[in-house]
Amino acid sequence: MAKLPTMFSLRHFLVLSLALNVSLLLRLMMHQGAQKAHKERTNSVTEEHHNIHKSRMVISSSSSSSSTSSFANSTSTTGGYNRVINLDHGDPTAYERFWRQTGDKSTITIQGWQSMSYFSDVTNICWFLEAEFGREVVRLHNVVGNAVTEGRHIVVGTGSSQLFLAALYALSPTDSPEPISVVCATPYYSSYPSMTDHLKSGLYKWGGDAESYEKEGPYIELVTSPNNPDGHVRRSKVNRSQGFLVHDLAYYWPQYTPISAPADHDLTLFTVSKSTGHAGMRIGWALVKDQEVAKKMTKFIELNTIGVSKDSQLRAAKVLRAVSDSWELGNSKESESFFKFSHKLMANRWKQLRLVVESSELFSLPKFSPAFCTFFNQVLEPQPAFVWLKCEGNVEDCESFLRGHNILTRSGTHFGVSPKYVRISMLDTDENFNQFLDRLSAIMS
Amino acid sequence: MAKLPTMFSLRHFLVLSLALNVSLLLRLMMHQGAQKAHKERTNSVTEEHHNIHKSRMVISSSSSSSSTSSFANSTSTTGGYNRVINLDHGDPTAYERFWRQTGDKSTITIQGWQSMSYFSDVTNICWFLEAEFGREVVRLHNVVGNAVTEGRHIVVGTGSSQLFLAALYALSPTDSPEPISVVCATPYYSSYPSMTDHLKSGLYKWGGDAESYEKEGPYIELVTSPNNPDGHVRRSKVNRSQGFLVHDLAYYWPQYTPISAPADHDLTLFTVSKSTGHAGMRIGWALVKDQEVAKKMTKFIELNTIGVSKDSQLRAAKVLRAVSDSWELGNSKESESFFKFSHKLMANRWKQLRLVVESSELFSLPKFSPAFCTFFNQVLEPQPAFVWLKCEGNVEDCESFLRGHNILTRSGTHFGVSPKYVRISMLDTDENFNQFLDRLSAIMS
Repeated sequence: MAKLPTMFSLRHFLVLSLALNVSLLLRLMMHQGAQKAHKERTNSVTEEHHNIHKSRMVISSSSSSSSTSSFANSTSTTGGYNRVINLDHGDPTAYERFWRQTGDKSTITIQGWQSMSYFSDVTNICWFLEAEFGREVVRLHNVVGNAVTEGRHIVVGTGSSQLFLAALYALSPTDSPEPISVVCATPYYSSYPSMTDHLKSGLYKWGGDAESYEKEGPYIELVTSPNNPDGHVRRSKVNRSQGFLVHDLAYYWPQYTPISAPADHDLTLFTVSKSTGHAGMRIGWALVKDQEVAKKMTKFIELNTIGVSKDSQLRAAKVLRAVSDSWELGNSKESESFFKFSHKLMANRWKQLRLVVESSELFSLPKFSPAFCTFFNQVLEPQPAFVWLKCEGNVEDCESFLRGHNILTRSGTHFGVSPKYVRISMLDTDENFNQFLDRLSAIMS
Repeated sequence: MAKLPTMFSLRHFLVLSLALNVSLLLRLMMHQGAQKAHKERTNSVTEEHHNIHKSRMVISSSSSSSSTSSFANSTSTTGGYNRVINLDHGDPTAYERFWRQTGDKSTITIQGWQSMSYFSDVTNICWFLEAEFGREVVRLHNVVGNAVTEGRHIVVGTGSSQLFLAALYALSPTDSPEPISVVCATPYYSSYPSMTDHLKSGLYKWGGDAESYEKEGPYIELVTSPNNPDGHVRRSKVNRSQGFLVHDLAYYWPQYTPISAPADHDLTLFTVSKSTGHAGMRIGWALVKDQEVAKKMTKFIELNTIGVSKDSQLRAAKVLRAVSDSWELGNSKESESFFKFSHKLMANRWKQLRLVVESSELFSLPKFSPAFCTFFNQVLEPQPAFVWLKCEGNVEDCESFLRGHNILTRSGTHFGVSPKYVRISMLDTDENFNQFLDRLSAIMS
């Protein structure tokens, strides 16, 4: 063993070492202070969200016979049978559980100086489309195999709602004395008539049920497949010349329906809200064959909102990438792929629902035919995002009947059909869905 | 002096102290490692944005006589006098320099599971308004003193463009046989006519110049103050009963104009694009007195885009907070306040512009009267976001004349007045602005 330093040197070393201790401690405290401040900022965003969630837990006293007021009444309260369970909207909160477990893979950080300009790529027809988002859209469609992207212009929108309006604007003849008719087979998405007619446009006008449409001349037919509200696969009905088709494929994803083939239409709409569950992002996209139609849709969005939020596009790109990655990198115990999670979620919910309702004389559910899914490579049942429930027997107004039991749903009348039907969301939180099943059981017993 | 510890104790102390040093060093290295990983994630988003900027540097060959195609031609190329300088739009890239130096204060991180719902606060009239954003709007108006927020409903929009359309929808009578006229004194914002008329709405219709408006009955008058394009302070012109006023105060911020008093109107529009420079965010807000008007504006946005991007609202809240903080926490060498930076920027640019143009017989600039600014507490000159340049002498078409010199501007005809005027952006990059001054000098010499 080496000879120890003298008392004089030891003392010096100790002093030096203590000085170093103090210095390192101070630096560490600085770092932790910075981290804490960062956490507090993050927590204030987190806390804000918790507060918003809490504020959603409000007694909704007025009924929602129109889809308009219903948006303001999207909350439920605690309190047993008196608890109002609001399943009127398709707020996709069921997916939150998946996204909580993805961690950093789906986190985005945006610096203050980024994405300030109006413009994304001015050489593109859709000059406000963020290239990164466009790439992830193409990739996801390739992964899932649910749409042809080759030869398509991508137009991004503030939700597919804005793209629907952009499509009407783009497809309407410019110099017609009469507005072009916009039709859709019943039951149709409850917002289509009001979205079409609220501005009393001279360019287009709601023409009602496509099945009974007989007017001469050009028309626009909306084809939603799988359909909202009833979940069935659909084709166009009118099938005459001079018709423009808008295919709304919001639910053409593997968790809702077997993927039969890549959709290959002239104008196809998708939305992040129903694919990944990020409804608050307000991002949708259109795959458009015709360049002139793509230009006019872009023009509409320019006049409406001078483009689409870049922050949301960048975040959507991150989220879509996480979905594609989760599938392509395979499933493991640590990280289940998004589509496996969501398919399992919907399968469980529909199974539980059918168990509860199957022997009931009060209610009936739609029947679906299984089909081969090219994505999951097996024969599977459709499991739509909404249940199109029918009240049997003497119950003529199903929405009122269920409202009397504190379950808020959307009446079939909003979808152009009988009030014996209601549309009920299958995408809400686990808590709300389980309470809904319990309530149905209670009604039936 | 106290007796020193024995050699045995000193050695022990030294060993303990050294052990503590090692432990503290290791902890510090861990923290720095975590920070570096965070920076790398940020840099990958940064790199994406550099690629987008590169894609903007494309030769724009077609001219832009209409504001429509002009959006697709917002780029400039390198190359001396042949370089096309596009100052047709108000893309606020001048502010990027400020935001680069704010660092973390304006950075936002959003986790994958946050803000997924459609809903923000369903107890609020504007159910998609993020509370945090609403609070920062109120705070900023208090800091600047440019608007009364007491007794106002805040409606958030995808830019003030969407809020303008929402205002038209909300103020139009529902059961009138004729569309209500929408008027504005010339020179008016070039997009107003097309935004008003592109859907040929039965509810409202462009009625032209407010100064010469004489039609009986209800009307909507747009008052933009400071005005776009000429920068002058404005009041309403029609001043009859049955008139609804929409005040567009996009430029009522201290860097553009003296703040005379808090704006106190029935319906006032603001936009993040022109206050902080974050045009790509697509966020605007309206301060609305009348509850029914606020409800109808909310309804419009619901039908148009089912709300407004939450990601953008949260980011806007962060940015507005950084602006308010930068003012309230005082100016220092390390961190200049946003308004000090931006006021100085505009002051320098206008000073340089006047120096170049003042002795010219070819061009003339508007004259502005200095006024007391309650924000900066001194008498100051207006320094608008656009220069309303007039070509004097024989030049009848100023836009063509300047286009011949590879400067793209927006012709006065788009603003309802003579082609001897053009609107030129004062908000573009330093590089473009300096090149513009050089080009003007070259033209005049």
